[in-house]
Amino acid sequence: MKVAFTSDNIAGASDSVWQAMMEASHGDAMPYGNDDTTAEVTTMLSALFECDVDVFLVSTGTAANVLSISAMTPPWGSVLCHTESHLLKDESTAPEFYTGGARFVGIDGAHAKIDPALLKKHVNQKVGDVHSCQPSAVSVSQVTEVGSIYSLEELRTITRVSKEAGLSVHMDGARFANALLSLGCTPAEMTWKAGVDILSFGATKNGTMASEAIVVFNKKLSKELGFRRKRGGHLHSKMRLLSSQMKAYLTDDLWRKNAEHANAMMVLLQAGLVTIPSVKINTLAQANMLFCTLPEGMADHLLAEGFAFYGGRWDEGVIRLVTSFRTPREGVEAFVECARHFAATRFEG
Amino acid sequence: MKVAFTSDNIAGASDSVWQAMMEASHGDAMPYGNDDTTAEVTTMLSALFECDVDVFLVSTGTAANVLSISAMTPPWGSVLCHTESHLLKDESTAPEFYTGGARFVGIDGAHAKIDPALLKKHVNQKVGDVHSCQPSAVSVSQVTEVGSIYSLEELRTITRVSKEAGLSVHMDGARFANALLSLGCTPAEMTWKAGVDILSFGATKNGTMASEAIVVFNKKLSKELGFRRKRGGHLHSKMRLLSSQMKAYLTDDLWRKNAEHANAMMVLLQAGLVTIPSVKINTLAQANMLFCTLPEGMADHLLAEGFAFYGGRWDEGVIRLVTSFRTPREGVEAFVECARHFAATRFEG
Amino acid sequence: MKVAFTSDNIAGASDSVWQAMMEASHGDAMPYGNDDTTAEVTTMLSALFECDVDVFLVSTGTAANVLSISAMTPPWGSVLCHTESHLLKDESTAPEFYTGGARFVGIDGAHAKIDPALLKKHVNQKVGDVHSCQPSAVSVSQVTEVGSIYSLEELRTITRVSKEAGLSVHMDGARFANALLSLGCTPAEMTWKAGVDILSFGATKNGTMASEAIVVFNKKLSKELGFRRKRGGHLHSKMRLLSSQMKAYLTDDLWRKNAEHANAMMVLLQAGLVTIPSVKINTLAQANMLFCTLPEGMADHLLAEGFAFYGGRWDEGVIRLVTSFRTPREGVEAFVECARHFAATRFEG
Amino acid sequence: MKVAFTSDNIAGASDSVWQAMMEASHGDAMPYGNDDTTAEVTTMLSALFECDVDVFLVSTGTAANVLSISAMTPPWGSVLCHTESHLLKDESTAPEFYTGGARFVGIDGAHAKIDPALLKKHVNQKVGDVHSCQPSAVSVSQVTEVGSIYSLEELRTITRVSKEAGLSVHMDGARFANALLSLGCTPAEMTWKAGVDILSFGATKNGTMASEAIVVFNKKLSKELGFRRKRGGHLHSKMRLLSSQMKAYLTDDLWRKNAEHANAMMVLLQAGLVTIPSVKINTLAQANMLFCTLPEGMADHLLAEGFAFYGGRWDEGVIRLVTSFRTPREGVEAFVECARHFAATRFEG
Repeated sequence: MKVAFTSDNIAGASDSVWQAMMEASHGDAMPYGNDDTTAEVTTMLSALFECDVDVFLVSTGTAANVLSISAMTPPWGSVLCHTESHLLKDESTAPEFYTGGARFVGIDGAHAKIDPALLKKHVNQKVGDVHSCQPSAVSVSQVTEVGSIYSLEELRTITRVSKEAGLSVHMDGARFANALLSLGCTPAEMTWKAGVDILSFGATKNGTMASEAIVVFNKKLSKELGFRRKRGGHLHSKMRLLSSQMKAYLTDDLWRKNAEHANAMMVLLQAGLVTIPSVKINTLAQANMLFCTLPEGMADHLLAEGFAFYGGRWDEGVIRLVTSFRTPREGVEAFVECARHFAATRFEG
Repeated sequence: MKVAFTSDNIAGASDSVWQAMMEASHGDAMPYGNDDTTAEVTTMLSALFECDVDVFLVSTGTAANVLSISAMTPPWGSVLCHTESHLLKDESTAPEFYTGGARFVGIDGAHAKIDPALLKKHVNQKVGDVHSCQPSAVSVSQVTEVGSIYSLEELRTITRVSKEAGLSVHMDGARFANALLSLGCTPAEMTWKAGVDILSFGATKNGTMASEAIVVFNKKLSKELGFRRKRGGHLHSKMRLLSSQMKAYLTDDLWRKNAEHANAMMVLLQAGLVTIPSVKINTLAQANMLFCTLPEGMADHLLAEGFAFYGGRWDEGVIRLVTSFRTPREGVEAFVECARHFAATRFEG
Repeated sequence: MKVAFTSDNIAGASDSVWQAMMEASHGDAMPYGNDDTTAEVTTMLSALFECDVDVFLVSTGTAANVLSISAMTPPWGSVLCHTESHLLKDESTAPEFYTGGARFVGIDGAHAKIDPALLKKHVNQKVGDVHSCQPSAVSVSQVTEVGSIYSLEELRTITRVSKEAGLSVHMDGARFANALLSLGCTPAEMTWKAGVDILSFGATKNGTMASEAIVVFNKKLSKELGFRRKRGGHLHSKMRLLSSQMKAYLTDDLWRKNAEHANAMMVLLQAGLVTIPSVKINTLAQANMLFCTLPEGMADHLLAEGFAFYGGRWDEGVIRLVTSFRTPREGVEAFVECARHFAATRFEG
Repeated sequence: MKVAFTSDNIAGASDSVWQAMMEASHGDAMPYGNDDTTAEVTTMLSALFECDVDVFLVSTGTAANVLSISAMTPPWGSVLCHTESHLLKDESTAPEFYTGGARFVGIDGAHAKIDPALLKKHVNQKVGDVHSCQPSAVSVSQVTEVGSIYSLEELRTITRVSKEAGLSVHMDGARFANALLSLGCTPAEMTWKAGVDILSFGATKNGTMASEAIVVFNKKLSKELGFRRKRGGHLHSKMRLLSSQMKAYLTDDLWRKNAEHANAMMVLLQAGLVTIPSVKINTLAQANMLFCTLPEGMADHLLAEGFAFYGGRWDEGVIRLVTSFRTPREGVEAFVECARHFAATRFEG
């Protein structure tokens, strides 16, 4: 069985999600988020996060991220994020666009996690100096771009450094559920209790077709978001298309079950690959994404056999493997077996 | 039977549209518009418009409009549109945001249609003068905000004046199908043959949940759109959600059938209201929207009876009535009957 | 004696101003506004305005205006100013640029003064509605673009309407001194005591070469200005070039004497023109600018005789005459005499 | 004799410059660059650069830089410059502001010069990929931020790599004259003959008070600059203040003589410091700026003795010394002597 590990954005939707969309397509509903389902979603997210949150639904992760940050920085500010972050690498100049031209500054750190010592240096740099961008916000990705996860302690260190310098904190949670399950904590513990002001609560990679929630814990930032969502063209008239997906996603722990499956498939995949000596695990996968380095010829062989994944974008031999709520167990096993067989023939034969 | 005439954005989706979304939710597909359905949509729109077009799908009408215009003007340009246009009245500062701060200038004209003489005066104003915004693009709404429609001759006059001065022309076709059927011409005649460079081809108000196509006839403008859609956060990862809706919309003339129904219901509605002497038709509806002035007490009575529509935003007594692909004939008849009865009792009794 | 009445920006500088610039060119001084003279200017302006003000020197009037307003509005806000204001007519898209894409809305009113009733209607329009630009600031020009002046009572009405709706107020004082002398009030009375938050205190049209002060009364707005001036490229390294001019301008009442002369020359000019029956005064000049309508042939005759002024931009026959601190009495008399002679020969002969 | 080596922006103006400003303050002149002197400046710069250039005068170096670059990149582009460049370090978010939100990417390289191999990697990165910023322009500083200079061969390598990938090239010539004299080539050789499209021709650090010329060699870029200068608030009404300074600067080789003096003083300063064993020269000064590392206590001693310079912003002990057209020989000698004496007493005694 040949499967694709290119990204979790190639999978469609869970059954209950498309059923919800289907039902939402019937009958009349108030536009622009004044439908009943949108209100329900806010209630459900408040319950999930154990606090009274404001919610702004949008249809893309880029919109969720850049809108969130646009509420946190003046145009003369700088936003600190990891050098390898999605914000800096994969969202064109959306960050500059939405913030009216703030500066996005990459901070290094192992395993795509911001190094708190480097962060501390940056947040206090030239504060008050009009010639320099003023540190205004920090954005962390949880899961990170290489598949690692900040521990709660690491998160709290980042937010403490940020807060002491007066910066707001955003979390890019495109794979929020995958991270949460890996840490085994509550949603509250991984967000507002750890000092996060706004969360991009991703659902599109984990079971919906297009539904992301900007979840605002620091409600002083909410006013900006309502107006900025509209001027960004991200206020849907038939909002129920987004709210119905999100409601289904939050119902009966779908978000949890889907992420559990994706993470479990990665555990299986990684467990298989680590037993192949010629395969090098770059960063130990903690959620549903893995970067590893294959021996010469193996990637081509796997592709030729019908498996799909991204390579050729990073160092020689490096590939990225992503599992999703839909990745079949047989596909994972077949992939590992195919790799093992190739290695055995060529390297350990 | 009590129905809502508030807007055509309160109706859900046609059956074939939600079925298409449902099917699109299954299986894997390439992300970011590299799915097969997106390619099919481009082919279908090229056929519909009888020319080779570029297509950029987005999920909101605001995005379609402001992205289109952002490809047409430098930030030191001005964009001319009717004083009552959606662009100027209902899209926050999205126009300024997406154009990097161009000026949007309202031009007057009867029935919310740009007066070509006034336009001519504006397009030639202070050209080359660095102190003045340089006229760069014109945007027309077809259907207009008051329910009127530009004739082909009127359209061609607007575009001729624009082209002679070197300006590009955008058409806001949020209700494109309704206008087209009313004119009884081909899609090509109402667009590129009449001098339109980019069309916002609306579908959300006429049968889809969230799918709008930016249709580019003047392909020199296409390059900007690809990059600007991404930086605006409007490039969907699971594009098939949008492309499947649009494909269904274009299949078996759904777009035409839906608009025919909506227009027919407005003909019925208007035909009923004109026979009530105390009701004044403000602008004769040519598509599916009508502004009329009700005698004192009638609006409150209709609302109390359970009908829904917008009023109180314009001059005393003015209300707006919009029909959609889903408006039931019985509802229209009930509305007219209720109005007639109220009038007969109070004014003509 | 043939003189130019085209604008007060064609005159050079008063003697004490160029002497100050000359002296400022010698020796070392701290850069970026840390020179002693800049501090002195703040002290002098605080004394002049009888309150503790923050001052940001810039070298153009456009910069003073748009920077001031950029501190007053979010990018989703609207700024209300007169339809004929310099902001809307003569500063390209600088207003949109500096505010990150706010909307600038023209309000009508006789003699280029905002009609308070129309303003009241606008400031309360669709407040809280995300689809609509949110009224955020008002900008008044004192002197206006047609040479009229708001009375203190008129100013206070505008600011009261603005403040009641929560809007900030900016005054474009490109010809501040001319207006002040005409009203005969104190600088404080015409600004913060009348509800003005930030003033563009113009000096370039009245005796300096390039020096304008942003005078901030509402100091909550100051923080933004420091950072925005730098990012606009308007923080001069050798600030003493600007501060020395402004200090000279404020010393020994130069600003007052210069404006007194300019206004007196306009009184003389207008007094002469009103006695010529075929010349129509459009708006009675209250400061140093006059719009009048000349009979056929008179403008061409005056130009042919060597006088200079602007015409041909407005209605048939309308010209603009501006006097400055340097306009010679003989030149005014010669102009009036030339006009009178032409009229006598052609029309009253 | 105690002198300041903090920056070349603390010196005032050369005598002929302030005399020119003084003369420019008399009489009337056409505003907004329509004065005769502005035309003369263009002629003089065309002669100096041996080609027909377009010239846009502005009053700050930041404006010259960011306006130049704004004509070279779409808002979805990236601009490549050295990690230590003024653009990235000292101009707030002016770069993002003026480009409408392009990305500014730092490229490393020894001695603050862009490494051509790294540049080559960047200019070809993800071209055509909508998710990634598209490389659009390169900006080089000549003199660099650490006082080094690109050789003509190095410059040509940078521009060749840029041009092959379709990028435009900007040169930040805040210290253009100092670099030119050091290389001993012609202005043409160091600019358009080496592939530069637009030059920020700095004069403020070398003898004027506030006058910088944007010199456009690639005239296809000129149209944008005229409109963008105005919307940036950088079009001076009394342009003669800027043009008169620039004319004086270009007359009788003032620019050359001033830079010769500044460079000679640096030669003297450096020659003195290299003979002190405990002083480390970080990058050999090629123009008028030097970074060196002083032994413990020396900086404090020099400051206590009345000399001025910047330190404490870089690594331990590092200070920056800048000479100008006005730096007195005796001051340089006194500084070296003071340093030598301190070193002798403490370290070599």
